[in-house]
Amino acid sequence: MARANVREQLVEAAMTRFRDHGFNGSGVKDITDLAGVPKGSFYNHFASKEALGAEIVRLYGAGQAPLAADLAPLDRLRADFRRKGELVVSGGFARGCLYGDFGNELAAQSEPIRIEVRAGLAAWSDLVASLLREARTDGSLVSPIDDETLGRLVVTAWQGSVLRAKVARSRAPLDDFFTLLDALLT
Amino acid sequence: MARANVREQLVEAAMTRFRDHGFNGSGVKDITDLAGVPKGSFYNHFASKEALGAEIVRLYGAGQAPLAADLAPLDRLRADFRRKGELVVSGGFARGCLYGDFGNELAAQSEPIRIEVRAGLAAWSDLVASLLREARTDGSLVSPIDDETLGRLVVTAWQGSVLRAKVARSRAPLDDFFTLLDALLT
Repeated sequence: MARANVREQLVEAAMTRFRDHGFNGSGVKDITDLAGVPKGSFYNHFASKEALGAEIVRLYGAGQAPLAADLAPLDRLRADFRRKGELVVSGGFARGCLYGDFGNELAAQSEPIRIEVRAGLAAWSDLVASLLREARTDGSLVSPIDDETLGRLVVTAWQGSVLRAKVARSRAPLDDFFTLLDALLT
Repeated sequence: MARANVREQLVEAAMTRFRDHGFNGSGVKDITDLAGVPKGSFYNHFASKEALGAEIVRLYGAGQAPLAADLAPLDRLRADFRRKGELVVSGGFARGCLYGDFGNELAAQSEPIRIEVRAGLAAWSDLVASLLREARTDGSLVSPIDDETLGRLVVTAWQGSVLRAKVARSRAPLDDFFTLLDALLT
């Protein structure tokens, strides 16, 4: 097994382990055991479990699928959230949004992870705002709330909706989200 | 120390410990050490750490402050969220909403805790809906969205807003929440 792959194996094992047991319920040895690599090899790739956690948040943001370019801006936004919602449902409501999971568990505890989650949520809010700006230009959005605020509100509402879907084990809160979206994006 | 107090000490210690290290990062011994009681005494009061976690969620719902009765319904709602927001700020953004914290960390892992969080969020959404019904009656709410859905949306948006306030260590996401509230409660 090439060495570059060990890093990837560690990342993948940590994502699974953190999802099922939380960051705080996962030790380095749990992660290396799951990855099938010796514990000592961990520190060839990451300075700490916290550094691995921050890296996972960065990768999560970088791995977001691009939006379908052939739709009108608000339809593109809705399609993206529908796709994200299907992932929550198909994952049996076990997996939420990593930003929400790590943000809630670790914001008070790990400064490097908090900073990465904040940056990820801000970049995502900006992406939504840029779609809203397009919609404003083509006349499909006339809301009196400015695009940047709306972008943050949409992403924030999504975080809450995914939490409730996980807690209720039901897609109903995701359906509620689209009602909210329609009410906001007038 | 009377025995009834040991139970209260365990609850209080667990709330502190869970907040700072997460449920999964807290063992029974961490809790009994913090409470200053022998580890064995834990099981005189709780069958498991999970049972204590579920109890904490129940107590959290029961301990919500009643709403000021002398305000108009929508003002009562706003005042309640302002008060909750001040607690988030004065707690240095370390403490969020227990439903959000436990829901995110534990929904996939503990069925008893998931059930309690679901019940707590549902009861809270119903409480908001009952205020909205009052507002509908006195003519201050005319939204085309029904009160039950609006009640859920308001609570869901609050969950997301508290998450972002914790992650950003800023009250700005709580201010955003009131913008959303005004947009929804028309």
